[in-house]
Amino acid sequence: MHICKKSRTFAAVILENSVYMSRTEISSLGEFGLIRHLTQGIKTVQPSTQIGIGDDCAVMDFNKGDASQKDARVLMTTDLLLEGIHFNLEYVPLKHLGYKAAVVNFSDIYAMNGTPTQITVSLGISKRFCIEDLEELYSGIRLACERYGVDLVGGDTSASMTGLTISITCLGTANAEDIVYRNGAKEHDLICVTGNLGTAYMGLQLLERERLVAQTLNPNGETPAEALHFEGKEYLLERQLKPEARRDIIEKLREAGIKPTAMMDISDGLSSELLHICQQSNCGCSIYEDKLPIDYQAAVLAEEMNLNIVTCALNGGEDYELLFTCDINDYEKLVPIDDLYIIGHITKPEYGAVLVGRNGEEMMLKAQGWNAFEADNR
Amino acid sequence: MHICKKSRTFAAVILENSVYMSRTEISSLGEFGLIRHLTQGIKTVQPSTQIGIGDDCAVMDFNKGDASQKDARVLMTTDLLLEGIHFNLEYVPLKHLGYKAAVVNFSDIYAMNGTPTQITVSLGISKRFCIEDLEELYSGIRLACERYGVDLVGGDTSASMTGLTISITCLGTANAEDIVYRNGAKEHDLICVTGNLGTAYMGLQLLERERLVAQTLNPNGETPAEALHFEGKEYLLERQLKPEARRDIIEKLREAGIKPTAMMDISDGLSSELLHICQQSNCGCSIYEDKLPIDYQAAVLAEEMNLNIVTCALNGGEDYELLFTCDINDYEKLVPIDDLYIIGHITKPEYGAVLVGRNGEEMMLKAQGWNAFEADNR
Repeated sequence: MHICKKSRTFAAVILENSVYMSRTEISSLGEFGLIRHLTQGIKTVQPSTQIGIGDDCAVMDFNKGDASQKDARVLMTTDLLLEGIHFNLEYVPLKHLGYKAAVVNFSDIYAMNGTPTQITVSLGISKRFCIEDLEELYSGIRLACERYGVDLVGGDTSASMTGLTISITCLGTANAEDIVYRNGAKEHDLICVTGNLGTAYMGLQLLERERLVAQTLNPNGETPAEALHFEGKEYLLERQLKPEARRDIIEKLREAGIKPTAMMDISDGLSSELLHICQQSNCGCSIYEDKLPIDYQAAVLAEEMNLNIVTCALNGGEDYELLFTCDINDYEKLVPIDDLYIIGHITKPEYGAVLVGRNGEEMMLKAQGWNAFEADNR
Repeated sequence: MHICKKSRTFAAVILENSVYMSRTEISSLGEFGLIRHLTQGIKTVQPSTQIGIGDDCAVMDFNKGDASQKDARVLMTTDLLLEGIHFNLEYVPLKHLGYKAAVVNFSDIYAMNGTPTQITVSLGISKRFCIEDLEELYSGIRLACERYGVDLVGGDTSASMTGLTISITCLGTANAEDIVYRNGAKEHDLICVTGNLGTAYMGLQLLERERLVAQTLNPNGETPAEALHFEGKEYLLERQLKPEARRDIIEKLREAGIKPTAMMDISDGLSSELLHICQQSNCGCSIYEDKLPIDYQAAVLAEEMNLNIVTCALNGGEDYELLFTCDINDYEKLVPIDDLYIIGHITKPEYGAVLVGRNGEEMMLKAQGWNAFEADNR
């Protein structure tokens, strides 16, 4: 079996992904040769990066560059992505997977109002993968690093008995006074979200649906592009396969002189994240169904698939949009910012977390976001 | 099947490990509940740790404590451990595994002449594991953190389709002028190692041998302790199952006013690490067979098992001892330091990396250390 080609069949149709025909076994290079091969030509751009790949540790000098202020802080976050749990290589191209694996870490740093600076990448790789696969994966990681100005400074690479494991840890910097935690929301604060919600989830539903179509039409071979139904829905695929971190919003808030009172990125669904903010800030919230930003294509697909788009917007994960609260006095400054939506406000803790429906009825928000430990998901 | 008990059977015999009879499913807590449960009561001791677990990122202030000098640097290293590749739960107790997973990262920081300060821990967990298993694993990680004064500041926890995945990233600090890289060795430098070599490897051979004995004697049940042959060999087990990082040596070198010219920890075997230093320092080396520090128990077991102990000392991994080079003028200062052995010296690059045998014959060193990507190891 030739994963280099086969796993790409379906994804190639979607994304005109490169299909390469050669297969070089990893054992031909060994661990150190593999690392050298994948990391050759990597340049660092952060002034804080002193030594990257090649020794027991990476070395950073956080007295340099943006981090040189006296009250500079170092931020650290980590994400583990496992095949079969977080991604399905039948329709996730490896380059996109690498890009996404890096970006979800950057998103956590921006969600503290910081700037990502360095990552380490650890990979567990089963026999199915060849050097060309890992080149694809790394090209995505490197592209994300270039776009966001982050340095790849180290990692660990190992064989794995089963699927692909990707563990990325990211460092970032921020001035102490700029950092935004989850626990600063207070009564009357405005609740804001960026972009749109539930779109990455609808992208996943679309990929799953078309994967089944492809399988049914042609269980063993390639599926002609015209047999699949992605037209007009490209944006949904992009949101699922190649999310971006909202650096742009962080920059705009800074330019506008706004410091959120609490902030998170939306990785597990709006409801789940809002409940975290309410719990840690000891407050309640009211959000309004008719204020939730929903993408038109996502709504159309939800209709087609008989799904409730509001439920998807509340509980669908992986949008990597920002959720934050702001002092009500920032209202005038918030309004001109593009792609930013005020969806409700913070209330007293005894009111709980409430969704106000289109016709005024109130429902309590529950964390129905995806739980990897649910029996059904394993 | 009840892994909580079953996986412990053999290991319990060895180490009188606690065998617990209850089994609490992870799904009963969910991801956030699980993290809260495992990390409750965690205290931080490093002055640089500002915010640990509970937000999108951990926050460090490296202007505080040891790291407050103007030329302070931040070190970063990461290690990925995968079930079936790096450990076998048939004989590795989870508490020891947690301890080792943390310590191997500390070892990398010490190998740069730094001090480990923070770790993040990411776990991929299959259905076989219950809450009690993870409590054991975490108790080992927490014990290592306590002993080495390192703070556990974050991580990620996820279901896994197959075995256990442990990814740990460690930060540390050092003054710029104290950091020791791999590339500073120069002609005539002394080559030193700590402790003894090949011992962890012989511990692994012993565990494998006795596992087969236990399986043969009693394929389905418990094996009585008296049927196994660990007596007098406890030290070998300890070296394999519960390695320590050589903080003590780093402190003694500092007290003696010695700064090594190049340093690494020995994780993949002496030959492999020496070749790294020679390559990166552009030099050759001569080491002497009769100078290699070998443990008596390890030598006895090698004899029993018909293995060449010198080969084991050169190529056996996981000793986590330090390998370093020193200016020859430091000789007088080196000699009084306990558990430290001068095994050879650095030569011109054209001489290559040479082992001088007991009867004077010379052999070229090869990196025969364990390669996870070898076809046989997968």
